[in-house]
Amino acid sequence: MNDQPIGICDSGIGGLTVAKEIIKSLPNENIIYLGDTARVPYGVRNKETITKFAFELVKFLLLKNVKAIVVACNTISATCLPELQKISPVPIIGVIKPTVSAVVNNLKTKTIGVIGTRATVNSNSYELEIKKLNNQIIIFSQACPLLVPLAEEGLISHPATKIIVKEYLQYFQDKKIDTLILGCTHYPILMTTIQEVIGENINIVDPAKPTALRLIKVLETNNLLGNNSRHWY
Amino acid sequence: MNDQPIGICDSGIGGLTVAKEIIKSLPNENIIYLGDTARVPYGVRNKETITKFAFELVKFLLLKNVKAIVVACNTISATCLPELQKISPVPIIGVIKPTVSAVVNNLKTKTIGVIGTRATVNSNSYELEIKKLNNQIIIFSQACPLLVPLAEEGLISHPATKIIVKEYLQYFQDKKIDTLILGCTHYPILMTTIQEVIGENINIVDPAKPTALRLIKVLETNNLLGNNSRHWY
Repeated sequence: MNDQPIGICDSGIGGLTVAKEIIKSLPNENIIYLGDTARVPYGVRNKETITKFAFELVKFLLLKNVKAIVVACNTISATCLPELQKISPVPIIGVIKPTVSAVVNNLKTKTIGVIGTRATVNSNSYELEIKKLNNQIIIFSQACPLLVPLAEEGLISHPATKIIVKEYLQYFQDKKIDTLILGCTHYPILMTTIQEVIGENINIVDPAKPTALRLIKVLETNNLLGNNSRHWY
Repeated sequence: MNDQPIGICDSGIGGLTVAKEIIKSLPNENIIYLGDTARVPYGVRNKETITKFAFELVKFLLLKNVKAIVVACNTISATCLPELQKISPVPIIGVIKPTVSAVVNNLKTKTIGVIGTRATVNSNSYELEIKKLNNQIIIFSQACPLLVPLAEEGLISHPATKIIVKEYLQYFQDKKIDTLILGCTHYPILMTTIQEVIGENINIVDPAKPTALRLIKVLETNNLLGNNSRHWY
């Protein structure tokens, strides 16, 4: 039993989709959510800048005496997660490995599409992690840089959003994917438009739930589960 | 005669539209251009964050021994220009006052539209500066937050850009404006689409040229003109 808080960080407010799932799964934990709204978005920046910002986020959370950290940001998870884990005295989990495990365990999955920020897609992280678990699976990835500002502006099912989503997802048209991973925490906000464009037959995967489930396992394994009343900082 | 460089700063690369005009007008000056691509965009952030970032930009340029600073960013010019001028030992000019002077001096101007980031529009800076010079002029302002990411992604005359520009500019439909100020250094990139949507009869004003002309005057007045060969840093 451990009453220290869990730290969740993201480039902005997108990671609240992950935080929501964690709070639902772990109602007795204290949560510190750190969203870098002063420097969002991260996905358009270079590796050096993203890594610098990510270290600052983790160091801030460590000063708050957290017992574990969830990097609820695909861009950071794809860019420098091992480096963060190296300097941290507490467990750090990202969103990519938990999501990939959940997807690969679904035996129906043969061909996966991944959409994300430019940094996430250029890192090839989803492809590398999937291939580690099952190198028979085929992966196609597409960067969708405009979806973050469209989601932030609330243009959820706006005609312009539909045109842009259609253009991005057109890449998958002849790829016969059965699964589409939303490799950015902002994208679940546009779920309706994405599902409409990609079609009802494609299984869309939101990293929030697998990440929350992985956190529970990590807390259990390290004997870190808490029993607090819930506080928001 | 003064051979120190001129500093130009912006939240990112948008200010290069101003830098280009300055280089054209002052070919014998050395220029240091500082674009904060690690933290762009500024226009969606709060006053405190924008001010903090702006002070860092100015201090950086002062350490480079500049003889004058051009804040080629409407958001900074609208948010904290007087505070920056207070701490600076060298002249600092923004983009709003020079643009407003040029517009007000045109006797045909009766009703002005201004488009800009949310921070620029919420500050009412254009309105305040115009009213100081001529309180008979009527001003209507509209924030266009998605135009920066659309310009950055190069969707210059894309159907989605046209839909979004049309929606933003619809606000001016019954306002009978004769002039439209592009109150963000990114917007000249979308000039063709903006002119097409607003109509050929409306005079569109880009702050780059009036800002370059103001800089020449400031350098002349302060005996700061240089005669260097041109260097880029």
